[in-house]
Amino acid sequence: MTEVIELNVGGVHYTTVLDTLLQEKSSHLHELFSNLDALVKDNKGRYFLDRDGVLFRYILDYLRDKQLSLPEGFREKQRLQREAEYFKLSGMLECLRNGGDMRAPGCITIGYRGSFQFGKDGLADVKFRKLSRILVCGRVALCREIFSDTLNESRDPDHGGPDRYTSRFFLKHCFIEQAFDMLHERGFRMAGSCGSGTAGSVAEPKPGVDTEENRWNHYNEFVFVRE
Amino acid sequence: MTEVIELNVGGVHYTTVLDTLLQEKSSHLHELFSNLDALVKDNKGRYFLDRDGVLFRYILDYLRDKQLSLPEGFREKQRLQREAEYFKLSGMLECLRNGGDMRAPGCITIGYRGSFQFGKDGLADVKFRKLSRILVCGRVALCREIFSDTLNESRDPDHGGPDRYTSRFFLKHCFIEQAFDMLHERGFRMAGSCGSGTAGSVAEPKPGVDTEENRWNHYNEFVFVRE
Amino acid sequence: MTEVIELNVGGVHYTTVLDTLLQEKSSHLHELFSNLDALVKDNKGRYFLDRDGVLFRYILDYLRDKQLSLPEGFREKQRLQREAEYFKLSGMLECLRNGGDMRAPGCITIGYRGSFQFGKDGLADVKFRKLSRILVCGRVALCREIFSDTLNESRDPDHGGPDRYTSRFFLKHCFIEQAFDMLHERGFRMAGSCGSGTAGSVAEPKPGVDTEENRWNHYNEFVFVRE
Amino acid sequence: MTEVIELNVGGVHYTTVLDTLLQEKSSHLHELFSNLDALVKDNKGRYFLDRDGVLFRYILDYLRDKQLSLPEGFREKQRLQREAEYFKLSGMLECLRNGGDMRAPGCITIGYRGSFQFGKDGLADVKFRKLSRILVCGRVALCREIFSDTLNESRDPDHGGPDRYTSRFFLKHCFIEQAFDMLHERGFRMAGSCGSGTAGSVAEPKPGVDTEENRWNHYNEFVFVRE
Amino acid sequence: MTEVIELNVGGVHYTTVLDTLLQEKSSHLHELFSNLDALVKDNKGRYFLDRDGVLFRYILDYLRDKQLSLPEGFREKQRLQREAEYFKLSGMLECLRNGGDMRAPGCITIGYRGSFQFGKDGLADVKFRKLSRILVCGRVALCREIFSDTLNESRDPDHGGPDRYTSRFFLKHCFIEQAFDMLHERGFRMAGSCGSGTAGSVAEPKPGVDTEENRWNHYNEFVFVRE
Repeated sequence: MTEVIELNVGGVHYTTVLDTLLQEKSSHLHELFSNLDALVKDNKGRYFLDRDGVLFRYILDYLRDKQLSLPEGFREKQRLQREAEYFKLSGMLECLRNGGDMRAPGCITIGYRGSFQFGKDGLADVKFRKLSRILVCGRVALCREIFSDTLNESRDPDHGGPDRYTSRFFLKHCFIEQAFDMLHERGFRMAGSCGSGTAGSVAEPKPGVDTEENRWNHYNEFVFVRE
Repeated sequence: MTEVIELNVGGVHYTTVLDTLLQEKSSHLHELFSNLDALVKDNKGRYFLDRDGVLFRYILDYLRDKQLSLPEGFREKQRLQREAEYFKLSGMLECLRNGGDMRAPGCITIGYRGSFQFGKDGLADVKFRKLSRILVCGRVALCREIFSDTLNESRDPDHGGPDRYTSRFFLKHCFIEQAFDMLHERGFRMAGSCGSGTAGSVAEPKPGVDTEENRWNHYNEFVFVRE
Repeated sequence: MTEVIELNVGGVHYTTVLDTLLQEKSSHLHELFSNLDALVKDNKGRYFLDRDGVLFRYILDYLRDKQLSLPEGFREKQRLQREAEYFKLSGMLECLRNGGDMRAPGCITIGYRGSFQFGKDGLADVKFRKLSRILVCGRVALCREIFSDTLNESRDPDHGGPDRYTSRFFLKHCFIEQAFDMLHERGFRMAGSCGSGTAGSVAEPKPGVDTEENRWNHYNEFVFVRE
Repeated sequence: MTEVIELNVGGVHYTTVLDTLLQEKSSHLHELFSNLDALVKDNKGRYFLDRDGVLFRYILDYLRDKQLSLPEGFREKQRLQREAEYFKLSGMLECLRNGGDMRAPGCITIGYRGSFQFGKDGLADVKFRKLSRILVCGRVALCREIFSDTLNESRDPDHGGPDRYTSRFFLKHCFIEQAFDMLHERGFRMAGSCGSGTAGSVAEPKPGVDTEENRWNHYNEFVFVRE
Repeated sequence: MTEVIELNVGGVHYTTVLDTLLQEKSSHLHELFSNLDALVKDNKGRYFLDRDGVLFRYILDYLRDKQLSLPEGFREKQRLQREAEYFKLSGMLECLRNGGDMRAPGCITIGYRGSFQFGKDGLADVKFRKLSRILVCGRVALCREIFSDTLNESRDPDHGGPDRYTSRFFLKHCFIEQAFDMLHERGFRMAGSCGSGTAGSVAEPKPGVDTEENRWNHYNEFVFVRE
């Protein structure tokens, strides 16, 4: 079964072993390579398949490891799906429908209401970004996968399933770059960012509210996507 | 008709069967390969075509399945069109004009007027993003394709055809990340994002309006594109 | 003249016909291939050129069709120019200087001053995006190419040539997604987007001005680029 | 040990020397190539490995130099990790976990509170961007790597380890483009940008505050990512 | 010296002439190919180098023209540098350190303070974008390279060297799309964009200031990068 097989897939040449091609019992590949004599050969004696040669790379990789791992940002998923359908690779089709590399695609929005600290106590130059809560919005299961135990779900009153969407999760810490790092580690990329400031008000500021800090209030929102 | 054919297209080698090359009756390829003896061969005996070798991959894929499926974000559409014209593949040209993979290209803008909930009832820290309506703008047919039954068309007074543009559709739910997910699933990518806050006002806020909530009003707009 | 020619360009193999290589009378290629016997050959008998093998793909494509069509977002223009200079392909150099695919590169900015409609007549929830004019800024010739008869030039008082820049064109319709679609169809991509809201004012709003609508005034600006 | 070895890795051909393949004592490759006679060969006599052919390029590069250097924005890290696991290359796996090219991935946010200078002294047109401090937020070790001695850490009261996050670092200079240049030189790319203006205030401006300058206050925030 | 040389670089085949490989006297390549008999050959008689095959394309291109021209946005600079170090190509290393294609990498920020013209004289609908100055910030030498004689340096009081940074340059014209076009022509790409509006003010507007125009004041900032 470790017989080396030379393939010509639409003009691209691959080499593998028979065992790999017979991995999926119900596939068209298994059907084809169970009867080697019936297969068409090219003029160099390679077994010939009249399909796209480039995409066959991922077909073979799937058969070798029984898991599907595609390049980040892979741009031929739809095309690959057609090939998997042709070869009747049901397990691979299942993987493809689930996002290819087992990591579900989706969006998560990170938002924060921020301002700046103004020195009340003589520290005249303490003007760093100040934020008290990092908001997390998106599909519940996805938010949990990324932020796990740094996620505070206490304020989401909706007790539906993990496929529901929420806009009431927030993080237990206040380091927005840490949140960004966790999203990047798990394959998310920033797709957009919006900022807006607050409106002024005729009302006199309440006692205890720093006027300057109040003026610098803003809301920044960052959309992350995993494809 | 399953005769294996070795091709040399401008120096790139493909392998296919005669049947595939004869698929489109009215094409230049059908004309050429109906008379194999008249074809020029390279020095290895491969049938030779003096055209771009790389793009022929998609020509062959089209002939095999009679549908055109290009990589997401394919960057040689214009070049491929020239090849399809040369080979007189009218069906393929039709597909190319329709966006290549049957999915019409286009833009959809998602916008929302948002604020934050401020605790009126002692819940002093209830400050999550609050939005009451997700706006959908774009070509009517495209909006329908993406959002189907989650789309509320009730406020679009214009009863024109599906090729008209609208800015009065909105969604039946208020989870903006769900809208983003639906757009991504269907091949859209976020191309830009804009945020703006509201202006203050000399007018005293009306009774029942929360002053703080009012100050945080903003409009965020996200532009999505499918190429 | 349809003699099949095997080429080895820096190690990449191409196949073409002599006729193609002799297309441009004044080129270095014409000079070289007018005297086949003087050409160096590799050990397989292919005519050898000591130049970049990958870029020669576009040299050949140009010679076949006498027009230059590069992939969208092609990243080796500068490198290709060097090859065209080496081969003394003056027509191709001309095309390259004009942007490669005859479509001039450039920027167009689309802006709109928007707000939201607030119900004056009991339609309390009529709060859709409201805009009354889509501004178009950029080089006059480029704006005309994209928007042609949907472009209103009536307010541009400058009667200079088409290479001048304008910021006083606008569209005859008010569907911003339609403008985006037209830009995308013609090879533009959104490169940036900015939003800003208006400032409040001490002045009492003028009679007839809706206070709420006034507060939501914003200016969103989208920059598009064709490379 | 400088014996030239021809490899067929899943159909892609590589050439190397035995010495390179035996570099890592504990690897599966060492095990395989210590016993050449037991290896499977293809029909041209090349040693055959039933693994992904394209990714083996980086396996070989690692073995040659004992360091891992991947393309910027490499999109097959997860796939490469699988190959490294298969070949039991522990050193390479270690490198991959550390970001591939020894440069840790991560986010850094650069923010500034800016305004414009308005002429108090008759210089009526002095209206350039004015900023007094460039804020740096992110993981401490990363901020230090990028900005080293241009970084002012004096206001970070937290004396934890370098893996903690900070939002209280700032730069010793006020040229934001210089900060951008330093980030780009070290492989960071801008992923998002947010702007917001300040709110007006009922309070009379304090003496010494320029009213116009005050009105133009804004906060711009730029997120950089290294993948 | 025009002897055709077949190379096998890590499995990728190149063809060149001896003359090209001997171009740089002090290089390791010159050392190797000065003594052809001592070189290892693969089983087809090609001279073998145990280095990355793909990157050797740029090594060869450099040797042919004695200048380095990389694809725009080339993502393997660090990897290429390793190869150049291995081959001891000092001139090429110098070029790589200078950004590869002689165009220094860097950032330039373009900003403008804008508003809209409101009709004072009955031209009720004159509401186009209005800006009176385009600001240019970045390294002085870079700003000069891009904008040359359209750059106004009169307000930069700092008379340091061209490597200093400035935020006080502006353009002699007011067409921001023209500035964008000039940046794109020279290889810059927009990396980010920020918008912010101004705050309202308790102060009565000064005589001669149009209230409406004043309310629409905003600052838009665009960051451009050349890699």
